[in-house]
Amino acid sequence: MPNIQKLRSMLMSNNIYGYIIPSTDEFQNEYPPKYLRRLEAVTGFTGSFGIAIITLDAVFFYTDGRYLLQAKQQLSSEFNILDIAEEGNCAFLGHNTANKFIGYDPNIHTFNEIQYWKSLGQKYGFSMIAIENNLVDNIGISYTKTDQVQCFEALWLNAENQELIFKKKLDHCFKGLDGNVTHLLLTSPASIGWLLDVRGRQTPYDMFILAYAIISKSGSITLFYDGSIEAPSFIEVAPIQSIIRYIMHFIAEGATIQCDPANASEKLASYCQVYGPDPCVMLRACKTEDERNGMINACYVDSKILTKFLNQLKLEYRMHTEISASEKLFAMRSEESSFVANSFDYISAFGPNAAIIHYKPIEETNLSLAMGGLYLIDSGGHYKFGTTDITRTILLGNNASYPQKLHYTLVLKGHIALATIVFPIGTCGVHIDAFARQYLWQHGLDYRHGTGHGVGYMLSVHEGPQSISRSLSNKTQLMQGMIVSNEPGYYKENEYGIRLENLMMVVPSKHKAFLCFKLLTYVPFDHDLILPELLTKAEQIWLDDYHANCLSN
Amino acid sequence: MPNIQKLRSMLMSNNIYGYIIPSTDEFQNEYPPKYLRRLEAVTGFTGSFGIAIITLDAVFFYTDGRYLLQAKQQLSSEFNILDIAEEGNCAFLGHNTANKFIGYDPNIHTFNEIQYWKSLGQKYGFSMIAIENNLVDNIGISYTKTDQVQCFEALWLNAENQELIFKKKLDHCFKGLDGNVTHLLLTSPASIGWLLDVRGRQTPYDMFILAYAIISKSGSITLFYDGSIEAPSFIEVAPIQSIIRYIMHFIAEGATIQCDPANASEKLASYCQVYGPDPCVMLRACKTEDERNGMINACYVDSKILTKFLNQLKLEYRMHTEISASEKLFAMRSEESSFVANSFDYISAFGPNAAIIHYKPIEETNLSLAMGGLYLIDSGGHYKFGTTDITRTILLGNNASYPQKLHYTLVLKGHIALATIVFPIGTCGVHIDAFARQYLWQHGLDYRHGTGHGVGYMLSVHEGPQSISRSLSNKTQLMQGMIVSNEPGYYKENEYGIRLENLMMVVPSKHKAFLCFKLLTYVPFDHDLILPELLTKAEQIWLDDYHANCLSN
Repeated sequence: MPNIQKLRSMLMSNNIYGYIIPSTDEFQNEYPPKYLRRLEAVTGFTGSFGIAIITLDAVFFYTDGRYLLQAKQQLSSEFNILDIAEEGNCAFLGHNTANKFIGYDPNIHTFNEIQYWKSLGQKYGFSMIAIENNLVDNIGISYTKTDQVQCFEALWLNAENQELIFKKKLDHCFKGLDGNVTHLLLTSPASIGWLLDVRGRQTPYDMFILAYAIISKSGSITLFYDGSIEAPSFIEVAPIQSIIRYIMHFIAEGATIQCDPANASEKLASYCQVYGPDPCVMLRACKTEDERNGMINACYVDSKILTKFLNQLKLEYRMHTEISASEKLFAMRSEESSFVANSFDYISAFGPNAAIIHYKPIEETNLSLAMGGLYLIDSGGHYKFGTTDITRTILLGNNASYPQKLHYTLVLKGHIALATIVFPIGTCGVHIDAFARQYLWQHGLDYRHGTGHGVGYMLSVHEGPQSISRSLSNKTQLMQGMIVSNEPGYYKENEYGIRLENLMMVVPSKHKAFLCFKLLTYVPFDHDLILPELLTKAEQIWLDDYHANCLSN
Repeated sequence: MPNIQKLRSMLMSNNIYGYIIPSTDEFQNEYPPKYLRRLEAVTGFTGSFGIAIITLDAVFFYTDGRYLLQAKQQLSSEFNILDIAEEGNCAFLGHNTANKFIGYDPNIHTFNEIQYWKSLGQKYGFSMIAIENNLVDNIGISYTKTDQVQCFEALWLNAENQELIFKKKLDHCFKGLDGNVTHLLLTSPASIGWLLDVRGRQTPYDMFILAYAIISKSGSITLFYDGSIEAPSFIEVAPIQSIIRYIMHFIAEGATIQCDPANASEKLASYCQVYGPDPCVMLRACKTEDERNGMINACYVDSKILTKFLNQLKLEYRMHTEISASEKLFAMRSEESSFVANSFDYISAFGPNAAIIHYKPIEETNLSLAMGGLYLIDSGGHYKFGTTDITRTILLGNNASYPQKLHYTLVLKGHIALATIVFPIGTCGVHIDAFARQYLWQHGLDYRHGTGHGVGYMLSVHEGPQSISRSLSNKTQLMQGMIVSNEPGYYKENEYGIRLENLMMVVPSKHKAFLCFKLLTYVPFDHDLILPELLTKAEQIWLDDYHANCLSN
C-alpha cells in the first residue's frame, strides 16, 4: 500500500503516531464530492461510511454492518476491519497507544467527535493533535480540485417571496434559543438549503449547495460559498475561507453566536460562544403542506417508473447485467421531465452480491442476471417536487427455492407490521423498530442495519433527525409530516439478499393524539416470492389492497 | 394543613424557601418501614412513589401515572399535583425561585438526585442546601420509632457454606471494577441480601435487612446494622451510625472506596473516592439455577392458590367487599406452609376503583363486589423459595358489556404478543414494550405505566435493573435468568380497570443467540371477557395451550 507508506512518512515528520481519516468531509457529507473523498483516495473504499486510523504499526478500518463485506473486498489484507457497532472506536487503543499522539484535521471532524476522541485519550493515555493541513491533501493522494464545482446553477425555489419566507423561518429558528444568542452559525448544507429555499448540485447525490451561513436574529444573513451564485439582494455572499474573520468581527461587535457541536467542525465551533442543536433540523424534518404534496407526487411518478422497469426486467433479464439493469433504470427515470438526479448510488445486485448490504456493481463484480436468482434494486431520484427511495427484490424466472420464499415472506410480514402500526404522540423510532424484525427473530434471523431513515425534501435522501432503529441514543419523536423509509431485509451470505423498502409519511390517525403512516410508494411485491400460507388474514387484505392501489396508479 | 404550617415555620427558622420530601428513605426503599414514611406522615399520601416540594408560597406534589388519581383523592386542594413524566421536577421552578434556597436531607437523597437538583438550580438560579436533621423528624410529625425493628430473626440461606459462597460472589463483584478500588460500599439492602444470602423483614413487603456494608477485595466485610443479629464469624457487625467513622478509618489506612451514586445517599457518597454502578445489581438480576427453580416453584404454588381464590370468588362475590376479598386471598396464601409474607400491598379493586392503577382499598372507599362489574386483584407473596406477583381481572356475574370485553381482549392480545416474542441477545425492554401496547394503540388507547419490572429472589418484588417500558434511559439488556413481569392494562376512569400480569423468565430460544420468555404463572384468563373473534389462530392456540397447562397444574 504505497499510500499508507506515504502517510506514515507524514506521521513521522509530524511527530505523531497515528492519523484519523473519516469518509466524511468539511460539510459532514455522507456523499462528498470527489475531491473531498480522502478516505477513498487513500484506501480505495467506496462505501458511504468508514473511518481509517493509520498508525505507524497498523491500519484500522471501522465501518458498519452495511459495509463490512464490501470493506473486506475492497481493502488490502493489511487492514484490520472492525464493526463500529461492536468495537466503538476503541479496539486500536489496545495497541500500545499510551503517551502517543494521534493527529486529526480540525476542519472535518465535528466538535463532538473530537470531544469523544479526547475522552478516549484521557482514558487510554493518548493525546489528540489538531493538524491544520489535511495530511491526505498534503501528500497529493486526494483527488484534485479541477472538477470541483460541477454546480448547476443554484435554484431558488420561492424566488417571488423569498425574503418573506426566510423571515418567517428565521423567527421559528430563534424561538427556542437562549435569549442571549444573537447569531446562528449554520454548518449543515441541508439546513441552509431549507432555510433559504435554495438548491444546487455539488455532490453526486444531494441537492444542496456546499455552504456555511451566519444569520442574525434581526434578519441579516451572510452565505459563505465558493463559486458564482446569483443570490437575492438580502443575502450577502462571501468566500468560505473568510468565515472565521466574519465570526470574529461579529463577536467584536457584541454578537453571541451559537453553533451545533454535533455538526460544526471543531475549528469553527471553537470560535462560537454557545453550543446547541441546529434548530433547522427539526423544522425541516416536519414537511410543509407543499412539501408533503410534492413528496407524494414524486413517489407516485417514481413508482410508475419502477413498476414498468421491474415488469420489463422480469421478461428481459437474460439481456442484462447488474450494471446494465441499473443503467436502464436510470435511463427510464431520465425520460421523465421532472427528474433531476439520482438521490444516491443505485444498488443493483444479483444473487450473492445482494448479500452485501450496500453493494454497488463495478466491472470486476458485475454479474449477469440469470434464472432462479433474486435481484435487488435499491434506488431513488430527486424530482422537481420531491425525493424518492425504494427497494424491491424480485425473482428472475420461476421456481424460487423454499428458503428464498420463506425469507422474502418474513421480511414482507415485518414490512407490513411497521406500515400498519398506530402509535401515540411521543413514540420514537426505537419503540417500533422491532415490529419489522419480529418474524425474522422467530426464525433466529435479523438484519444488521436500521429499519428506516428520514428523507429530505430535494436535499439529502438520508436526512435526520428521526430514524427507526435499535439505537437508544436517538430520542427523536416521530412527528406529523416526517418522512421515513420502511426497509427491513434479510441477507444470506454468498447466496442472496432481500430488502423491501417503501417511503411513508407520519400522519394523524383517526384517534386523537395517535399517529400512523401514510404510504407514499406503490410498487407491487413479487407474488412469486410470497408464501401466502404464512400471511394472516389481515396481512393478506393489506397486500391485496396495496396491489389494488398499485394498479390504479 | 397543620403539618404544612409546621413545616413552613421550620423553613423560616432555617432561612430556606422550600424543602423536598420524597416517598423513599435512607435505604431507597420503595416500601419504607412505617417510621421512615415521612411523606405519608406529612401529607397522608399512601402510594409508593411521590415527591412533595413545600415552599413558603405553594405545595407541589409529583407522582407518576399509577398514582395521579389516588393523589387527587388523598391530598388537600392546596397541593398542585403533577405528573412527573410530563413535568420532570421543573414546574415549581417557574414560581419565582431565583436566588432562593431549597433544603433537603442529604441522608435520604442519592448523590445523583442531588446532582440533578443542583443542575436545575444552576439553570434557574436557586441553591440546594443540605440540612442534616430531617425537618419532618424534627417537628415530630413522622411516625415514631417505637415499632421500628419488627425484624424477624435474620435468615441465613446457605448457613453451611456461607463464607465460600460469599467469597465467590465477592470475586465476581470486583472483577469489572477499576483496579484501584479496594473496598465497595454497598448501600442497597437487596445487594447485601444477595451477597450475604441473608434475609430479614423490617419493611412491610421486602425480605431484606435494612443495612449498609463495606466489603474489601481481600474478603473482609463490615455489616452496618441496628438491632441484634447472629452473623457468621467472618462478618463484623457495627451500628449504622458508625459507618462514616469506618469509611474514614479505611481511607486513612489507604483504601480506595467505590459506591454507587445512583443509590448511595449524597452524604455517604461524599466520603467515597470512586463512583460506579453497584456490581451486585446485574449479578443478582440473573438468577442462579437454584433461584430459577425456586421462582418456578413459588409461581406454581401461588398460581394454584390464585386459581382457587378466583374460582371461589366468581361464585361467592356477593358476600365480599374489596377488603374482605383481599383478606380472604391473604388467608388462603397463609395456609400454605411455605408462604412467608405478602410481597406488596394487595390491589383489590372493584369497578371504578380499579381505574386507579395502584388502588388500595381502605374503609372509606371499600366497595362491595356486585354483578356485572370487573374485579381486579394484583397481589403476590414471598415463599420460602421465591417471590410472586400476579394480576387478574375477572367479570362478576355474567353479561359483560362489549367495551369491557373489547378492552380485556385487547389487553390479552398485547400480553400474548409480549409473552411469545423471540429476540436477539442485546435487546432491551424498550425495544419490545410496544408489543404489549399495539392492539390498544390501534383503538387510540394506552396505559400510563410500564409493561414489566424485574423481580427479586425473596428480596423485593420490584427489582431492577431490567424493565420493559418506554423509557429510553434504561439501557439494560434482557439476559438469561432474569425475571420480568408482563402486565399490560387498560383503565377507564370512573368505570373499570383491567390488568393481566404473569411473571416470565428470560431463557435461551431454540435459535442460537436468541432469547425468549418462559412463563412462570399459570392462572386462567376469564373466558367471559374474551372476544374470540378478535384472536388470531395463533393467539387462540396459545390461549388453549396456556389453559391446558393451568389445568394440569
